[in-house]
Amino acid sequence: MSLDHAASKPHEALAVLLRDDMDAVNTLIEARMASKHAPRIPEVTAHLVGAGGKRLRPMLTLAAAKLCGYDGPYHVHLAATVEFIHTATLLHDDVVDESEQRRGRPTANLLWDNKSSVLVGDYLFSRSFQLMTETNNIDVLRILSNASATIAEGEVLQLTAATDLSTNEDIYLQVVRGKTAALFSAATEVGGVIADANADHVKALFDYGDALGIAFQIADDLLDYQGDSAQTGKNVGDDFRERKLTLPVIKAVAQATDEERSFWERTIEKGRQQDGDLDHALSLMDKYNTLSATRDDAMQWAEKAKSAVKKLPEHEIRGLLSGIADYVVARLN
Amino acid sequence: MSLDHAASKPHEALAVLLRDDMDAVNTLIEARMASKHAPRIPEVTAHLVGAGGKRLRPMLTLAAAKLCGYDGPYHVHLAATVEFIHTATLLHDDVVDESEQRRGRPTANLLWDNKSSVLVGDYLFSRSFQLMTETNNIDVLRILSNASATIAEGEVLQLTAATDLSTNEDIYLQVVRGKTAALFSAATEVGGVIADANADHVKALFDYGDALGIAFQIADDLLDYQGDSAQTGKNVGDDFRERKLTLPVIKAVAQATDEERSFWERTIEKGRQQDGDLDHALSLMDKYNTLSATRDDAMQWAEKAKSAVKKLPEHEIRGLLSGIADYVVARLN
Repeated sequence: MSLDHAASKPHEALAVLLRDDMDAVNTLIEARMASKHAPRIPEVTAHLVGAGGKRLRPMLTLAAAKLCGYDGPYHVHLAATVEFIHTATLLHDDVVDESEQRRGRPTANLLWDNKSSVLVGDYLFSRSFQLMTETNNIDVLRILSNASATIAEGEVLQLTAATDLSTNEDIYLQVVRGKTAALFSAATEVGGVIADANADHVKALFDYGDALGIAFQIADDLLDYQGDSAQTGKNVGDDFRERKLTLPVIKAVAQATDEERSFWERTIEKGRQQDGDLDHALSLMDKYNTLSATRDDAMQWAEKAKSAVKKLPEHEIRGLLSGIADYVVARLN
Repeated sequence: MSLDHAASKPHEALAVLLRDDMDAVNTLIEARMASKHAPRIPEVTAHLVGAGGKRLRPMLTLAAAKLCGYDGPYHVHLAATVEFIHTATLLHDDVVDESEQRRGRPTANLLWDNKSSVLVGDYLFSRSFQLMTETNNIDVLRILSNASATIAEGEVLQLTAATDLSTNEDIYLQVVRGKTAALFSAATEVGGVIADANADHVKALFDYGDALGIAFQIADDLLDYQGDSAQTGKNVGDDFRERKLTLPVIKAVAQATDEERSFWERTIEKGRQQDGDLDHALSLMDKYNTLSATRDDAMQWAEKAKSAVKKLPEHEIRGLLSGIADYVVARLN
């Protein structure tokens, strides 16, 4: 299929190009989220899977495999694996964060209960391992089990780091690599590995997913403070109210006067917030230009992702991967 | 080592026989529960792992491998895998059940919080998959990922079945196979598979673990109603108070008069319990002799486990496996 007919956004164009494979992924997901014995499992899963989402991660796996010339069937299993891991972490995240909304709908923990979210998440994790086992490829099993451990480790680290003012940019990056980038980089890497790509190409695919995931998360954290709530579906300052230290605040804390530091201690570490605190927090971020510094960081990671793309084999998909890297930070302007 | 010096209980005798291997398992568990970035992970894990427990499941893996003549290193990885899966499910179970005590100590969800229990459980699940991947044996990966899915499915089924009076013995068995027996049978099966045992021996190992797990869980459910709380560490009737339908009640419900059925509907389905209800429940179980019928079921499963042992190769470990089957039901007399 020619790209002339593709949609205007790069991930939509990729979806058009990969349509047959994505149909196969969706069919496999439907089949494997079933449970003969426990009907609550497909109910809960369908609520989340049916809510849409861009399915960016499984598309990246398909794209990586195709770009590397793969013509076997297992990129579909790996893409479904990646989506199951993602869905399982969303279910558990919503329990951990006590969230009430996800993709504009009430969360599963609210509609059913925390128990169902914990156990259905466990089921989807197990299903994801079954799926990847079917590829008979021990390398992809190693990559994806490592990614799962890194995700969980990043989430646990965030539990303690999020309200600790000594959390610096290095620790923030560690959390982001865990909770977001690890699955992006595993998604692209396994696409190359299943296609038996050479080590340089596999490395470039990993680097692309890693940088893209980091750019994506930094952009998300920035939009929490400067986004249009109609567009993001979140209220400005949710992270502040939930006492979650992210890059814009970490940069402000690093430069804080004693008085400003006391403000951050009270509002983030102790969580004793009062009217006007969010405005004051935003004024401190403005004082040190941390929102634009955070945007610069996101842009740099997007550039890194595009540099990695240049190391991949010539293929029409390369342009779309670069376009996706631009797209995740374009919403920041 | 001769069995002459073995301790009197069969699982203790097995622990003596497998001491070197179990030391290696414990060393591997210590190493792999570490986290460079998130110190909370080993804290939470150590609380649970350090509380002891008999480590019956990993011992069964080691025993199965040894009995089948295995002399490689990977039974140790598989035993640690099995213990990690078990520990992860305990962490999540305590969140789901809102438990406050486990092995005589406060639960992790009480000492830390539900978030830590969910995420550290996820970490241990991922670690278990990393460990089994290191064996480079796709068959054991398939068996253990299937077992994980069956465990989660059984737990989800229990969520809805536990308070539903239409839950019959078949559904109960399904839940028990999931939440308990699946890990026992996987533990013994992978020991045979890693040793490259023939299909009949692998089947016998599976059957042994399956029947042992079922006997174990039925015994546990029976002891909830007739146990000595000093010995079991639980109060008589916890399952009744928590509205958890188990075999002794299922058997009483199956024979209930209309009036008795109303009692079970009020206390289990609707959860409107009052003083004296537990005594009345016990009197109904007594009326239909369901406690002794439940004990008979447990004994039959223990016999099935022992029949499976007879199909295994001659080895001193065979007697200990039979002894363990006797032991899990001996506490019922």
